[in-house]
Amino acid sequence: MLYVGERFETRIRLSQAEVEEFRRFSGDSNPIHDDIEGAERSAIGREAVRSVHGMHVALVFTRILGTQFPGAGTVYRSLMLEFDEPVLVDTEYIAEVSVLSVDRKRHRARVLTLIREATEPEKTNVFGIGLVIHKERI
Amino acid sequence: MLYVGERFETRIRLSQAEVEEFRRFSGDSNPIHDDIEGAERSAIGREAVRSVHGMHVALVFTRILGTQFPGAGTVYRSLMLEFDEPVLVDTEYIAEVSVLSVDRKRHRARVLTLIREATEPEKTNVFGIGLVIHKERI
Repeated sequence: MLYVGERFETRIRLSQAEVEEFRRFSGDSNPIHDDIEGAERSAIGREAVRSVHGMHVALVFTRILGTQFPGAGTVYRSLMLEFDEPVLVDTEYIAEVSVLSVDRKRHRARVLTLIREATEPEKTNVFGIGLVIHKERI
Repeated sequence: MLYVGERFETRIRLSQAEVEEFRRFSGDSNPIHDDIEGAERSAIGREAVRSVHGMHVALVFTRILGTQFPGAGTVYRSLMLEFDEPVLVDTEYIAEVSVLSVDRKRHRARVLTLIREATEPEKTNVFGIGLVIHKERI
């Protein structure tokens, strides 16, 4: 059973090949991710060209929630995500999920979902909160 | 230039092959989407087995925002999503993005991002709000 304060952490690193596969699969061919001019004209600037699509990074959370923590059977009911800093290609980050609140009667928990750099534990690249349901583990 | 009340709409339909590709790409092999027993034990119930992963549906919005409305150059700064009703495989839905607020000075807009059934215009399967930045179009 999940409890408040419980925490799951894993290291992630997304490759350029995965960025290209995401572009093809999602259809999101926004040039900020692969064209230096497009990147420079965007709100992120030049660094965008080395960045992973925000929604690509977000897939890390559906994988963790649906297969590891709380795992198989989880329903992702709602979420919010803030993209604070670009997540760069071929760079290692920490993906963290921790439990903020639990409602045992309705089998629901609110989880914090973060992507951050290993060297900067207080700053987040992606900050999120999700509401998950698991009839057996919550 | 984007204005409040402006609206973009398109029809979407996700296939079983795409659900399987999403499972492989994201690593989210949660059995609720492909195993009837797993589905029945989940909070969604039996219907989950015919449902598309919520985060897979969410990719429709990154594609629309990044390539169509407002289009190339958009940065998706933050979002919230509520998965109200399952989105089913091989079923047509309407994906809608409309502008709720605009900040011309900071080139930001809040957009409503919805997935709904064509026959039920007032009900949403996915309800979301995003904050997007586009230095030239907002």
